[in-house]
Amino acid sequence: MKSNNKLKIFNDPIYGFITIPNSLIFELIQHKYFQRLRRISQMGLSYLVYPGAHHTRFHHALGSMHLMQKAINILRFKGVTISKEEEDGLLVAILLHDIGHGPFSHAMEHSIVNGISHEEISLKFMEILNAEFNGSLTLAISIFKGEYSRKFMCQLISSQIDMDRADYLKRDSFYTGVAEGNINSERLITMLNVIDDQLVVEEKGIYSVEKFLVARRFMYWQVYLHKTGVVAEQLLMRILKRAKELVELGNTLNCSKALLFFLKSDVNRQGFNAETLAIFAQLDDYDIVAAMKDWQNHEDFVLQNLCQMILNRDLLKIKIKNKPIKTSELVTHSNALMGKYNISKAEAGYFVFYDEITNVAYHNKKAPINILLKSGKIKTIVKASDQLNLKTLGKPITKYYMCYPKKQM
Amino acid sequence: MKSNNKLKIFNDPIYGFITIPNSLIFELIQHKYFQRLRRISQMGLSYLVYPGAHHTRFHHALGSMHLMQKAINILRFKGVTISKEEEDGLLVAILLHDIGHGPFSHAMEHSIVNGISHEEISLKFMEILNAEFNGSLTLAISIFKGEYSRKFMCQLISSQIDMDRADYLKRDSFYTGVAEGNINSERLITMLNVIDDQLVVEEKGIYSVEKFLVARRFMYWQVYLHKTGVVAEQLLMRILKRAKELVELGNTLNCSKALLFFLKSDVNRQGFNAETLAIFAQLDDYDIVAAMKDWQNHEDFVLQNLCQMILNRDLLKIKIKNKPIKTSELVTHSNALMGKYNISKAEAGYFVFYDEITNVAYHNKKAPINILLKSGKIKTIVKASDQLNLKTLGKPITKYYMCYPKKQM
Amino acid sequence: MKSNNKLKIFNDPIYGFITIPNSLIFELIQHKYFQRLRRISQMGLSYLVYPGAHHTRFHHALGSMHLMQKAINILRFKGVTISKEEEDGLLVAILLHDIGHGPFSHAMEHSIVNGISHEEISLKFMEILNAEFNGSLTLAISIFKGEYSRKFMCQLISSQIDMDRADYLKRDSFYTGVAEGNINSERLITMLNVIDDQLVVEEKGIYSVEKFLVARRFMYWQVYLHKTGVVAEQLLMRILKRAKELVELGNTLNCSKALLFFLKSDVNRQGFNAETLAIFAQLDDYDIVAAMKDWQNHEDFVLQNLCQMILNRDLLKIKIKNKPIKTSELVTHSNALMGKYNISKAEAGYFVFYDEITNVAYHNKKAPINILLKSGKIKTIVKASDQLNLKTLGKPITKYYMCYPKKQM
Amino acid sequence: MKSNNKLKIFNDPIYGFITIPNSLIFELIQHKYFQRLRRISQMGLSYLVYPGAHHTRFHHALGSMHLMQKAINILRFKGVTISKEEEDGLLVAILLHDIGHGPFSHAMEHSIVNGISHEEISLKFMEILNAEFNGSLTLAISIFKGEYSRKFMCQLISSQIDMDRADYLKRDSFYTGVAEGNINSERLITMLNVIDDQLVVEEKGIYSVEKFLVARRFMYWQVYLHKTGVVAEQLLMRILKRAKELVELGNTLNCSKALLFFLKSDVNRQGFNAETLAIFAQLDDYDIVAAMKDWQNHEDFVLQNLCQMILNRDLLKIKIKNKPIKTSELVTHSNALMGKYNISKAEAGYFVFYDEITNVAYHNKKAPINILLKSGKIKTIVKASDQLNLKTLGKPITKYYMCYPKKQM
Repeated sequence: MKSNNKLKIFNDPIYGFITIPNSLIFELIQHKYFQRLRRISQMGLSYLVYPGAHHTRFHHALGSMHLMQKAINILRFKGVTISKEEEDGLLVAILLHDIGHGPFSHAMEHSIVNGISHEEISLKFMEILNAEFNGSLTLAISIFKGEYSRKFMCQLISSQIDMDRADYLKRDSFYTGVAEGNINSERLITMLNVIDDQLVVEEKGIYSVEKFLVARRFMYWQVYLHKTGVVAEQLLMRILKRAKELVELGNTLNCSKALLFFLKSDVNRQGFNAETLAIFAQLDDYDIVAAMKDWQNHEDFVLQNLCQMILNRDLLKIKIKNKPIKTSELVTHSNALMGKYNISKAEAGYFVFYDEITNVAYHNKKAPINILLKSGKIKTIVKASDQLNLKTLGKPITKYYMCYPKKQM
Repeated sequence: MKSNNKLKIFNDPIYGFITIPNSLIFELIQHKYFQRLRRISQMGLSYLVYPGAHHTRFHHALGSMHLMQKAINILRFKGVTISKEEEDGLLVAILLHDIGHGPFSHAMEHSIVNGISHEEISLKFMEILNAEFNGSLTLAISIFKGEYSRKFMCQLISSQIDMDRADYLKRDSFYTGVAEGNINSERLITMLNVIDDQLVVEEKGIYSVEKFLVARRFMYWQVYLHKTGVVAEQLLMRILKRAKELVELGNTLNCSKALLFFLKSDVNRQGFNAETLAIFAQLDDYDIVAAMKDWQNHEDFVLQNLCQMILNRDLLKIKIKNKPIKTSELVTHSNALMGKYNISKAEAGYFVFYDEITNVAYHNKKAPINILLKSGKIKTIVKASDQLNLKTLGKPITKYYMCYPKKQM
Repeated sequence: MKSNNKLKIFNDPIYGFITIPNSLIFELIQHKYFQRLRRISQMGLSYLVYPGAHHTRFHHALGSMHLMQKAINILRFKGVTISKEEEDGLLVAILLHDIGHGPFSHAMEHSIVNGISHEEISLKFMEILNAEFNGSLTLAISIFKGEYSRKFMCQLISSQIDMDRADYLKRDSFYTGVAEGNINSERLITMLNVIDDQLVVEEKGIYSVEKFLVARRFMYWQVYLHKTGVVAEQLLMRILKRAKELVELGNTLNCSKALLFFLKSDVNRQGFNAETLAIFAQLDDYDIVAAMKDWQNHEDFVLQNLCQMILNRDLLKIKIKNKPIKTSELVTHSNALMGKYNISKAEAGYFVFYDEITNVAYHNKKAPINILLKSGKIKTIVKASDQLNLKTLGKPITKYYMCYPKKQM
Repeated sequence: MKSNNKLKIFNDPIYGFITIPNSLIFELIQHKYFQRLRRISQMGLSYLVYPGAHHTRFHHALGSMHLMQKAINILRFKGVTISKEEEDGLLVAILLHDIGHGPFSHAMEHSIVNGISHEEISLKFMEILNAEFNGSLTLAISIFKGEYSRKFMCQLISSQIDMDRADYLKRDSFYTGVAEGNINSERLITMLNVIDDQLVVEEKGIYSVEKFLVARRFMYWQVYLHKTGVVAEQLLMRILKRAKELVELGNTLNCSKALLFFLKSDVNRQGFNAETLAIFAQLDDYDIVAAMKDWQNHEDFVLQNLCQMILNRDLLKIKIKNKPIKTSELVTHSNALMGKYNISKAEAGYFVFYDEITNVAYHNKKAPINILLKSGKIKTIVKASDQLNLKTLGKPITKYYMCYPKKQM
């Protein structure tokens, strides 16, 4: 179905229609590595809090590409030269920027694999696809790695005001129904320009940038770090940790071959070769959920209970505080649990634990958002903003939480 | 967490907030049988056509309940007496009306089980829950079965203008991004009334009813019966059929225990006992997709290929016609496939087949939509509508299709 | 402010941003004849029924131009050649298509002027602007008049599926809050093509066309011909009629000079010269409302009461029927009024009257909407549509109404 | 039409439907004083910048009342007792809170009348209506004046988080198409509670409050104080000032009787008696625009030009700075104008002037927004907010601007 003169479109509740601009993009979308993203939830387990949040990495990637098309048009209108090759490079790079995500997006990054980020895995996917597509992705890869001579292109892919964020904030806000996180991506993009190979926002867009940063902060604390979502993600990571332990101890665990591979081996950056990638490419949300469904009946007390908690959304309790948690409270819960079920301290630790969550709304130092003043000068958003005291957004905020079982456990 | 004075709410991108009216409803939602609906896609495999369509039965059930609350308020405002018990009955009945759906909603009804509809299974779930909840669902069950003395209540649950449709048309339209299917549920509900124990729509709502019927028809042909969606659903049913065959022949198939149970046994209405229900309650979309992911590497040519087709969205071709398909064309495709891969005619039949799809937009005979004229008289919508010739909507429309492999298979 | 490299945009709640494509368009928008459209309500007095409906001809004209840009892009993508000059012609023609509207849009066409349509006046405006702009509008005028060699261009401006309708249905639905009238303009435009110099819709757009026709019909009966709106419009026309009578009889009426000109003279097509146009260009909604505000205290019983009715939204009663009104009922009302206020039968006729309203949802004969089948054949939508029996939409529907005073008058 | 059992509804593009809760409210809406709000633009001349912003005070008043109904329901759900009489009082008070606005809302407050705010005029209207409605508004007036014993009720009408703001921010954002200003009124209202007779927001609503304040600030600088809107408003005030001068000097100016009354007399708080109110009630946007349309041909150079500028949207230039304007630049412009047209310095001052605009996003001192922490303690939002440094929002921001003619004037 190589549609040349045919208009290939995707319906999108947010943008209306997303148009596929050329056959290279079309074929990349058709590829099984990209189709796999249909089975990876964009927001992990957040649907346990926001029941509408079942959208996928697949849709987000299409959306980001759609916004990139808009950005390219605007920049060209303003006189920025972007060649056909560079356009393709930008579109491919943004389309594939998240292809390295594992099941449930971020949750897996510290359990299935270790010491290798999803961006690094994305790059590995791109290189394999580049070989399959006879080098058509070379420029895209160069842009993605930040090696291409025109730096602003990489900023469109990955910066504090890139097309990735422009789509995901809007999309996550839309599907969760949390209207406060909605941003006006179109206005932001309309205000973009390029000066001295730097992506800048024109002065009249200053309030839109502020709004964007505040919305992003809102989404972090209200949605991405929602306390119930935090519990769920912690439980998921502990399930995988426990599963690894059990496998190491020689227990039999039913699950997909691909998942078993990662349970058995400690894959890190060095060990992540082509073969590993091929197995990784078989993993998605369905491997994890299917495993949990089996393991909820496993004889191991810990594994069984953790799985049931997620599947039946009968989670641990969580308390969030602005100050570090006192361990005395934890000990009480832990002891009670050990006594009640005759389990070890280590086992109780799967249900009674504490940790912290940190977020920085805006990184002022590394790669700030630049504003092009009417005078022609360029200032960072923090300096250009008259009132909001955005500097405070650069301060990392840390919250402390503890989890422990409900009474009836 | 029996929240008495606490307002328990769900975010909904469509209605804003959905409020949980009381603790019975709250506890039903908490039940694992209801939580299971989070893992059942409302629109089956339609997300292969409309990438936004990942919403679940869980969300639809909440949405329908929300509309029921609105309907109850409107009817009471107009003087229709509805007691607190009846209100609870209506809310519970609509909340649980779809709880009997299996994986991928409709696709399973003719493969996993036989001769038993999801409504019947819903009823079985309700009865079990009724026992657990000490009879609190008795009135809801009576309304659901159409046995309660006040017939209009059943019509709010199940009729051509019920709260189920009022939600799913709006919701499916929203998540697919197919704006044409959007209906104004709120206006429709505002126009409802009850005359002689019959649900009626006031005359000024006549155009809204017409619009509702046309939108529904639109959704059927544009979305629910979209040709790509039809292929995907057919492939899914054939996968399960093939899996059953292979299991009967003694082959080993990796899959969840619950799925294996249904592959091994021929469950029909008579055999669907409490034990069956308990196993059925363990099934959801994840069992099926996880199985397909394993089976795509199965040695059986048919099973392997069917699974790959869905997982990689590399489907069969489909031709849709208004006239029955000529078998000669099929034979050509079938013979080519048999020759190419050295497979039997029966095996080729998994990839080359034809069938028909039928839809009736409006059933004029059984339980028509009634319009309350200003004069006080009641007419069916077909008679009350001056122009659209809605009678034609009552004519079943049949389309004929054939599926066959792409050249490269 | 001839913005060459500057992006000139308008905010639009519907489309997000409307971009001004070039400086000719920009200057036309700046012209006082076009700015005048800011003071002409798109939906006349409909805001008395739908309080949100205060949008203007100005905004609609911009919106139509925006959709025309989309249509041009789509058609070019499909291989239809459209030169830069033709593009400009299309954009100018759609931008100015409604510039000839008088105050309150349609209401004035049969009272202020006679026997000359707003399209004819639009053309006169274009010709004057063409002189001012040194002939830059020549091609636009040729397209608008249907004289240009490529007929499909005129169909984009004026046909049963033109950019005018594509915007106004969507816009009127949006601002009234009548969601049922919402159409998916973007999908419709995406399905457009040109075959043999005829605008066609591709087969897969067939349900969208049906939906569009049904939505249009809905808007007519629910909104444009809403009974309260009909009363208001009738009262407005009678105010102007009465004012003309009083002026002819030598009474003094305070109002703007431009309005007085049209009250004093009987302008018809022949008499509509350049001078008339210049005065017409000074008229807008504000002349009429300001006059009514003065006249509500005029000593003439009829004029005074009619004006108060609109200003205070204390309108006549209206009954709508499917059969012609019986005059006996009217006579009773009329006699009562004559007796109560000692007025003549002619005067009573301003408050007691009957008439009919007619609408045809789709004109099947003249310039049907054509569908391009996958086979390459072209059929009219009525023949291509399998089920809806659209033929019935071609039947004119007539309703009969009578107006009469409330008891307390 | 005292509809008792009839559901009286208004369509609203934002909330869907607005329901009229009882016949007192219904009759107040029918009153000509309230109907007059249909002719007063909510956002003054902002439609010259945002072409969709033609919504009226009428619609805003209905919207605020709708939100008040929601707030009452939520508070009752949480156990706050609100009697039927108090409910009516709250609804009437919010419905009429803006009834004292003059033409173009705020622009008139310093030109038509002096030293009397629209709130004071609203109160006068309420008192007159109270007499007409036999004292039914007594409690509403008491709440509105802040005299009622339960203080939180006044806070729902007028505070930094009242139903007025909850509607107008949402509504103005909607009609302008400036999505960044959109707030989630429903979520905010859901988080309301009453502690010790103070309106508070529950802790989990803290980010929503922050978002609300930032959105409000955004709307101020992007929309309400948009530089083009500022010019237009300044021109409008100068038109009325010039008109007053000319009338004082004995010139004849055509305009409505009501407007002439205010041009001739210097009405201040003391002089604003019942008779003045009756004349004031005749004024709306149409008096002003109709006058401008006449005056654009007046022989006075200043008046004529100012009027043309607004009507043709051919405004003065404006420069906005963060520092006070240097007068030298002004003198140059002023001298040039005096020379070119042979006008006096005072006359030139109508076209060359400077001023400042100030906004405080949040008043921390007087009546702060209070947050109810989970611990039961109450903190102001500034103290409860962890990061945004909302204190800075309390700092008044001042900008300085100068206006001067375009070259071609």
